[in-house]
Amino acid sequence: MSARDAMVASAAALFRERGVAATSLRDVVEHAKAPRGSIYHHFPGGKAELASAATAMAGDFIGQLLADLLEGGDPAHAIATFVDYWKQSLIRQDFADGCPVAAAAVSPEETDDARATAGRSFARWQGQIADALVGRGVRAGLAADQAGLAVAAVEGALIVARAQHSTEPLERVARQLVRLLST
Amino acid sequence: MSARDAMVASAAALFRERGVAATSLRDVVEHAKAPRGSIYHHFPGGKAELASAATAMAGDFIGQLLADLLEGGDPAHAIATFVDYWKQSLIRQDFADGCPVAAAAVSPEETDDARATAGRSFARWQGQIADALVGRGVRAGLAADQAGLAVAAVEGALIVARAQHSTEPLERVARQLVRLLST
Repeated sequence: MSARDAMVASAAALFRERGVAATSLRDVVEHAKAPRGSIYHHFPGGKAELASAATAMAGDFIGQLLADLLEGGDPAHAIATFVDYWKQSLIRQDFADGCPVAAAAVSPEETDDARATAGRSFARWQGQIADALVGRGVRAGLAADQAGLAVAAVEGALIVARAQHSTEPLERVARQLVRLLST
Repeated sequence: MSARDAMVASAAALFRERGVAATSLRDVVEHAKAPRGSIYHHFPGGKAELASAATAMAGDFIGQLLADLLEGGDPAHAIATFVDYWKQSLIRQDFADGCPVAAAAVSPEETDDARATAGRSFARWQGQIADALVGRGVRAGLAADQAGLAVAAVEGALIVARAQHSTEPLERVARQLVRLLST
């Protein structure tokens, strides 16, 4: 991994755990074990630029995961596996971190580029799910609504699950979404 | 409003906008226009105690709102009105703030009491919606799943809406939830 990539990955990891506002450039440099001055070499725009790059990386990663799952052709099954991915992630980290894109979505004015990047990531995931539903014969408007519900419900369930230290919120959402997207 | 209540309300307002980790006691004192030392008089436990109180207050407020809406007897209509409440809130604040309980849910170890309080608030809201559904003849297990989906979807849609600077994510979720809870 290049020094730049390591900083981006460290930023995303810290955003997941403590949010964007509470993550300093110093935290990222320490986490990435990078030399102190190097962060401004790679990110002359400072935290705003780094936050944007980390959000884009995370959004692409999740988009690629969704694309792979949806390639199987069954949107309901894809969403069930997607929720299970998050469930395993929560368990592995003992409920200490969530979705880095959601963290960017609620970040303050200082990182408004990252916030906009998060908005585009959500739109891309929604579009991918909607396309798969349309491919199964669902009309476009309904497919967009169902895909919007799926993205929102998974993001919301991650937040409820962290607060409750339980995977149950994700399981409830998975059962409901599978039911909805199968019909 | 008492000095203590003013600090709790200021904390909740700041959590909505910038999150818990990025809100300092100094920020709260300034926002509440309170004397500097008074915060430790009212909250000897410092930020952890204040965050917990603010989350409980917000959770109760939203729970009471939901109770009032559900009293009408139609869970689908109640959820539609609930989503509309959030839509108006986002528009009024130009998408700058979200749900204070969700902010507490993703807050770090330092405020783990507030996180647990958020978890109980989500559970209470879910229970209220589930009870209303059971009152309409839905079996308990399904009602709990549908209520869990509703809470998660509204919380998630608030995050997506902030990132996209648009009320559309909430509208999509409202249409789908109304459809689901009406049948």
